[in-house]
Amino acid sequence: MRESPLFWPIKLRGNVIYCLDETALPQKLLYRKAKNLSQAVGLIKTMKTRAFGQVLMVYNIFLLILKKNRYLKPQRQIENLKKAALKINKSRPTFPFPFFTQMILSWANQAKEAEKDIFAFTENRIKKFLINLREKRLDQAEKLSRLIKDGDSILTHCNVSGSLVLAAEFCRKKNKKIKIFVTETRPYLQGSRLTAWELQRSGFNVTIIPDNAVALVMSGKLVNLVVVGADQMAQNGDIANKIGTYQIALLARHFKLPFYVFAPPPSKAKTKDDIKIEIRPEKELLEFEGKRIAPQKAKGFYPAFDITPHNLITKHITLDL
Amino acid sequence: MRESPLFWPIKLRGNVIYCLDETALPQKLLYRKAKNLSQAVGLIKTMKTRAFGQVLMVYNIFLLILKKNRYLKPQRQIENLKKAALKINKSRPTFPFPFFTQMILSWANQAKEAEKDIFAFTENRIKKFLINLREKRLDQAEKLSRLIKDGDSILTHCNVSGSLVLAAEFCRKKNKKIKIFVTETRPYLQGSRLTAWELQRSGFNVTIIPDNAVALVMSGKLVNLVVVGADQMAQNGDIANKIGTYQIALLARHFKLPFYVFAPPPSKAKTKDDIKIEIRPEKELLEFEGKRIAPQKAKGFYPAFDITPHNLITKHITLDL
Repeated sequence: MRESPLFWPIKLRGNVIYCLDETALPQKLLYRKAKNLSQAVGLIKTMKTRAFGQVLMVYNIFLLILKKNRYLKPQRQIENLKKAALKINKSRPTFPFPFFTQMILSWANQAKEAEKDIFAFTENRIKKFLINLREKRLDQAEKLSRLIKDGDSILTHCNVSGSLVLAAEFCRKKNKKIKIFVTETRPYLQGSRLTAWELQRSGFNVTIIPDNAVALVMSGKLVNLVVVGADQMAQNGDIANKIGTYQIALLARHFKLPFYVFAPPPSKAKTKDDIKIEIRPEKELLEFEGKRIAPQKAKGFYPAFDITPHNLITKHITLDL
Repeated sequence: MRESPLFWPIKLRGNVIYCLDETALPQKLLYRKAKNLSQAVGLIKTMKTRAFGQVLMVYNIFLLILKKNRYLKPQRQIENLKKAALKINKSRPTFPFPFFTQMILSWANQAKEAEKDIFAFTENRIKKFLINLREKRLDQAEKLSRLIKDGDSILTHCNVSGSLVLAAEFCRKKNKKIKIFVTETRPYLQGSRLTAWELQRSGFNVTIIPDNAVALVMSGKLVNLVVVGADQMAQNGDIANKIGTYQIALLARHFKLPFYVFAPPPSKAKTKDDIKIEIRPEKELLEFEGKRIAPQKAKGFYPAFDITPHNLITKHITLDL
């Protein structure tokens, strides 16, 4: 099955992390290099990668650090991994980085306690994890495709890192014809720049709409179901996803449309109240490609995510690691 | 009371119509000139003026044509006015141009039948109409201000041509402190470029949010009421307004917030079913200032308006001509 570049946007080659620059799409298919922790965290902070890319970034950062530190004393290796985890965890507040960094730290600690080679042991665990992750993401996309019928028209928001394209590919294999409408997803335009791009290059019928046109396309029956991703899922099924998801979920309920979520494994958050919403710098809203679009002294408020409570979600399409 | 340039954006001086170029704001306060019908209709089609500016444009076009044709035979004068009306009516589909052009044509016909000077009679009627219109718009803004309490925080969408600023001025006179949140209103960004601009230059507390953040600011109680305008009102109170208005109205109902509409006089449309929604060229969504932001061959769907049914409107703030 052909994969979108967004499905696996981060790779480690030698001592260099290659990160698909999602901000350069669709104009350029460009990979940024990171040779150390700071550079890699910088790519996260500036949103060169996001959503699932952040998961891969965490594992690849650790692979890199493990490699670089492999000849240090075990105690120093662990300390450096812990420092890296702290820095990664602080990079952006809404994504559950601690979930992933903790996982890796616990493998490293396990190795140390068992007096095994920390590098070899942890690298092996990470690689196995990533192989499993890829398979489970394929399963997840296939699971969604089973909920989609011939003739369905899907509304999506932001970008689900190649998973929706994959689900569409599974539909194609079963001869189910589908249409996709995608909100442009201001201010970063991930819907227009990423989702429309990856669907179109795989030959799917995709139409970009303004974020403002959701109620219109729902009431006009141009779409009959909604699929979105999630940056974090709490244990009760509440999800944090790109700003705008919550209102789409409320509108879907009003128009009685199924609302499906590609959900990551649950984080430590028990409910939505434990999820912190990242407020991004206002200039990301008030400028466009470095040029001011708002009045000079205007104030902006740009929460990057919102929370959709579990009761608005028809079904969580889970990633069963 | 100080007026926003958007409150009265069109003026006739000599034989030239001066039209505030709303697409150049907030960077430049610029007036475009139109010396004849085609140029003036061109300004409407390219959205240099919109909403209330279109009303003024119609009357000013007729003032200009009346002047230019005043020495022709009455029959020719009427014919030329009819031609102008037809061209204006076709300029954009959702705005009720025929309502206004019909009004002027009937005055001109009245003059002809009474064998009066068509120019003098109709010009006089138009001028009286415009003086009355200005007063009634002030009344309308004051009416809204009476519904606003000290400490209120208003969400607005797109731009209501100076009326909201005026209402805010009336609040200030009564020492009512208010805050305003405005959606940026993609794709033309009228909220960010016009509403934030006119409110801020008059010293009001205004914050721009992404169109995607409406549910978040409502659920977070950052706003407690909604005010929008309308490009057209049907006789049953259904309104057509900038795309996105409908979903904001649905969300306002969900969060139990009052939803107020600055409403124009009813058009000939009986209900929403009689209102035609203008679909604008997709490039207005897929390009930004002439630069492509979407993938090269991507499709876009950009309905410029949507319809909010009357049952979602808490109160119509009417313009009682």
